Amino acid sequence: MIPIGVVVASDRASSGVYEDRGGAAIEAWLTRALTSPWVSLKRIIPDDRVTIEKTLINLADVENCALIVTTGGTGPAPRDVTPEATEAVCERMMPGFGEAMRLASLKEVPTAILSRQTAGLRGRSLIVNLPGKPSAIDTCLAAIFPAVPYCIDLIGGPRLETDPAVCKAFRPKA
Amino acid sequence: MIPIGVVVASDRASSGVYEDRGGAAIEAWLTRALTSPWVSLKRIIPDDRVTIEKTLINLADVENCALIVTTGGTGPAPRDVTPEATEAVCERMMPGFGEAMRLASLKEVPTAILSRQTAGLRGRSLIVNLPGKPSAIDTCLAAIFPAVPYCIDLIGGPRLETDPAVCKAFRPKA
Amino acid sequence: MIPIGVVVASDRASSGVYEDRGGAAIEAWLTRALTSPWVSLKRIIPDDRVTIEKTLINLADVENCALIVTTGGTGPAPRDVTPEATEAVCERMMPGFGEAMRLASLKEVPTAILSRQTAGLRGRSLIVNLPGKPSAIDTCLAAIFPAVPYCIDLIGGPRLETDPAVCKAFRPKA
Repeated sequence: MIPIGVVVASDRASSGVYEDRGGAAIEAWLTRALTSPWVSLKRIIPDDRVTIEKTLINLADVENCALIVTTGGTGPAPRDVTPEATEAVCERMMPGFGEAMRLASLKEVPTAILSRQTAGLRGRSLIVNLPGKPSAIDTCLAAIFPAVPYCIDLIGGPRLETDPAVCKAFRPKA
Repeated sequence: MIPIGVVVASDRASSGVYEDRGGAAIEAWLTRALTSPWVSLKRIIPDDRVTIEKTLINLADVENCALIVTTGGTGPAPRDVTPEATEAVCERMMPGFGEAMRLASLKEVPTAILSRQTAGLRGRSLIVNLPGKPSAIDTCLAAIFPAVPYCIDLIGGPRLETDPAVCKAFRPKA
Repeated sequence: MIPIGVVVASDRASSGVYEDRGGAAIEAWLTRALTSPWVSLKRIIPDDRVTIEKTLINLADVENCALIVTTGGTGPAPRDVTPEATEAVCERMMPGFGEAMRLASLKEVPTAILSRQTAGLRGRSLIVNLPGKPSAIDTCLAAIFPAVPYCIDLIGGPRLETDPAVCKAFRPKA
């Protein structure tokens, strides 16, 4: 079972004020897209930078997740600090992920430019910020996931196989 | 009257060698686009990083401008340091603005990739770098402004209303 | 003869395990595109961050290359550190180059988002990261080179002329 970290950064979901929808949307999409056996390590935490950083570090270094996705905390509101937490724990950044997600979202809403989503690498883990809204999560996962399995190959992680009817993973011929 | 900061970074305009055209183009565009009452706090200053930083801090922290736009100093020439000054005074960056402005400008000139424009947040202020040339200013404002009123809502600023014939502000339904 | 730095970051090419193809592809493209007399200062070095930084500094500060292009080391693999070395030696970054190269490459392969290519300025030198694969190098050079001669004008470098049948250099009218 390949562990995948799913981090829900949300003051309201973590305090029980409302039900997590972002994390559930990510799990539903991955369940449809992945044919490799996997297990979700879901963490629902407040929009607190230190807590987000510690959670990402634990999922990367202790739980050995080759892929960690976050939802929430990527907008301009004062409590939105997921990109800062992500950058703080990554050694190298992957700017193409944020660009591609904003480009895909921009075809749907002009406010896509307000998303501060980023992605980066910590050791053998790829960390990707997704938006908070389920419909935007699907748009972003569709935009980036074809490149994710090959990225995880390159950082020495497990081989992820996808259902091509949902997501055509692309691996260049050597 | 909603205060909006307009910072003209230009050695020549600030020394009186030639008339400011960038700041005037921004004010003309905002006059057409905004139906909310607003006032321009225009500052014409040299391309000096410390001066730009002090001016941005004053407009954000003292004048309480929820929106501050700059013009000039975003190219590769040695005196072009507006993006560095912007990043130095912002707590969080908004990478989608620069991407969207370059993408829109790239449809007009291949040298759009030379623009180093960025945007970011300082407290309750959104700071956005615009180009120096009036025609490029219009292209960039058209590309990003539909998302600006909602951004300012999210950082706790005043409600900006636009004339939809000039700029359709987009606010997602809650 | 205008000196242009060509840095091949590759453990295997530098140890002689296989022949450099990236540097050769860059030289072939520039030979077709440039009508100004130029000379390639090619350096084949390992994927080591300090070595890349020293090489870039030497080509910029000692050899006075107004243009330095790199190939290799821009992916997510652990030894890929060319973007970090580039950022470390540059005073100001040029984000539009990486964006434009990923955008052009994304039309060919979805894994284009894995490229971490960047560009920046050190003194009077423009440093641009290119991919490692010859076909991707051509795609990226075609995407960015129309803006390169004007960029070099702006940083005080020599005037580069191109063959418009290969690359239409664009210089805005003053």
